[in-house]
Amino acid sequence: MPIKYYTHNLPFKLESGDVLAQITIAYSTYGEFDGDNAIWICHALTANSEVDDWWPNVICEDGFLNPQKHFMICANIIGSHYGSTGPLSENPNTGEPYYDTFPFITVRDIANAHYILAQHLNISNVKAIIGSSIGGYQAMEMALMYPKFTDKLVLIATSAKNQPWVIAFNESQRMAIECDPSYGDADCNAGSNGMKVARSIGLLSYRGSNAYNATQQEIEDNDKVSGFRASTYQQYQGEKLCSRFNAYSYRILTQVLDSHNVGRGRGGVESALSQIECKTMVVGISTDIIFPVSEQIFLYKHIPNATIQLLSSEFGHDGFLVEYAKLNSILIPFIN
Amino acid sequence: MPIKYYTHNLPFKLESGDVLAQITIAYSTYGEFDGDNAIWICHALTANSEVDDWWPNVICEDGFLNPQKHFMICANIIGSHYGSTGPLSENPNTGEPYYDTFPFITVRDIANAHYILAQHLNISNVKAIIGSSIGGYQAMEMALMYPKFTDKLVLIATSAKNQPWVIAFNESQRMAIECDPSYGDADCNAGSNGMKVARSIGLLSYRGSNAYNATQQEIEDNDKVSGFRASTYQQYQGEKLCSRFNAYSYRILTQVLDSHNVGRGRGGVESALSQIECKTMVVGISTDIIFPVSEQIFLYKHIPNATIQLLSSEFGHDGFLVEYAKLNSILIPFIN
Repeated sequence: MPIKYYTHNLPFKLESGDVLAQITIAYSTYGEFDGDNAIWICHALTANSEVDDWWPNVICEDGFLNPQKHFMICANIIGSHYGSTGPLSENPNTGEPYYDTFPFITVRDIANAHYILAQHLNISNVKAIIGSSIGGYQAMEMALMYPKFTDKLVLIATSAKNQPWVIAFNESQRMAIECDPSYGDADCNAGSNGMKVARSIGLLSYRGSNAYNATQQEIEDNDKVSGFRASTYQQYQGEKLCSRFNAYSYRILTQVLDSHNVGRGRGGVESALSQIECKTMVVGISTDIIFPVSEQIFLYKHIPNATIQLLSSEFGHDGFLVEYAKLNSILIPFIN
Repeated sequence: MPIKYYTHNLPFKLESGDVLAQITIAYSTYGEFDGDNAIWICHALTANSEVDDWWPNVICEDGFLNPQKHFMICANIIGSHYGSTGPLSENPNTGEPYYDTFPFITVRDIANAHYILAQHLNISNVKAIIGSSIGGYQAMEMALMYPKFTDKLVLIATSAKNQPWVIAFNESQRMAIECDPSYGDADCNAGSNGMKVARSIGLLSYRGSNAYNATQQEIEDNDKVSGFRASTYQQYQGEKLCSRFNAYSYRILTQVLDSHNVGRGRGGVESALSQIECKTMVVGISTDIIFPVSEQIFLYKHIPNATIQLLSSEFGHDGFLVEYAKLNSILIPFIN
């Protein structure tokens, strides 16, 4: 689907107090809006608005996101690389890209930006907000910040607060980017060697021991002492991200993750979750080590109107992208 | 204890076929040798021969390594930073340190070098070989390469073969070191920024989600959006390693880890383990994510004369350093 753009030509105030002179939101839509069939999809860290690209088997006639029935909107998060205002966008105050002067943003700023898009689209209410991973962070914030906006909430492999181990992973990734001396240059490829390392660090959390051991064992030469498949995988995936993302955005988004705490300014995490009024489905993945099932159980326990489903998978956190059949069977009845 | 040195002035042939012109082994001993009371201790990745430094509460009168009873030897592994031949040692062929020309070595080369030291010390038999983590790799290899050398074997938080997820962790660490442009310079501090990142990656595996969440939660300001304790911890631990280790050794040792496969040239892992004849104690740590309990169960199942004990701990892999009371209670009866 073609990506659409909305430019909001007013100052956009961030949670930090900083102001972006204007923001552009890139978004994709699927299906036809009938006034009462909208679903808002929140994407994960390095994804984009094109849900059919990264979640093809759930956004289809057999999927829980059915374009024959629903009108789906997915917007690229600010700070990212895919069309919404981010570090490579021109700073109207200087006429140059922001690069490393892009301000510190939080999940709440992302939620706020997307709510502005919803208002522009005249969508005052959606049937559901759906988010996995950092998308779940955004979905929770939207449900809390705009309680009348959604009827239902779907939280997949996410957490109420970014936990210390996730922060530590993100810090290591930022350290890797900063270790690249080109980071800071006025160049869209600045820091890409560092981002390659950062990505390979991130991957370690997306799939844990079980998933790597299931998918990256040597097949032919069991006696080799170097040049392992698992090494090639890290290198390859690192390079692959460099061909489609920028290090400034990557670094900013790790900070966005770390900022996430639904309890901030709301009397703590439990208190915040207790304020989520809509019907909520929490989905946990059995082998997810970065957003472990314990975090999903926590959400389920503290959101008043929540149900929980645990999805068994070998793929760790990446299960939310891979296990489409299981997701469809859980979410088709919930959404409809 | 003062560190002792033995220089073996003969060519030392490596598994790869390469030759080191000579090797020096740095080692420490504890207690008095009575001809029948030796225990060989194999240290972990960045440790050294000074066991009283990194395992103080097990090498003491109340510990399972009792200097009143036993004569303990721990030797620094070749490739490392603490006195044995490694990248910062002078290459006799050039008169300059090896730096990044230090040859590729394996766990078997380390075992071989230490067996040469044992011969030099006139120790033909030990009561036990003990190793945790990569030390366990070495202990297994010594038991297989020199079957008459030891009566007992203690394997703590280790594995028969370095698994894909561990390889992936190590690859990310090597990528981080190589991302530092100073790596490759003829300087003992070359690559230290990269090693700082590498260490912070390694830490993520030594303690998992549970351990970080138990020890690195914010205490005072629950509403902060940046500057988290978990971030400071990564930075601090990374810097700490840089003040005591070098990036050439660090990189070499990650390759040593990856090379580990007791089954190499022995008809596979199961076949190799079945050849370990001595009485073996396998100790697994409940929250260890990098050498998970499943790996310990595998060792236990395939080593004919093995017992297994699972040690419950909050500290993940680091539990082998922290849970000295539990280790003493498991190992005092086994050793004596």
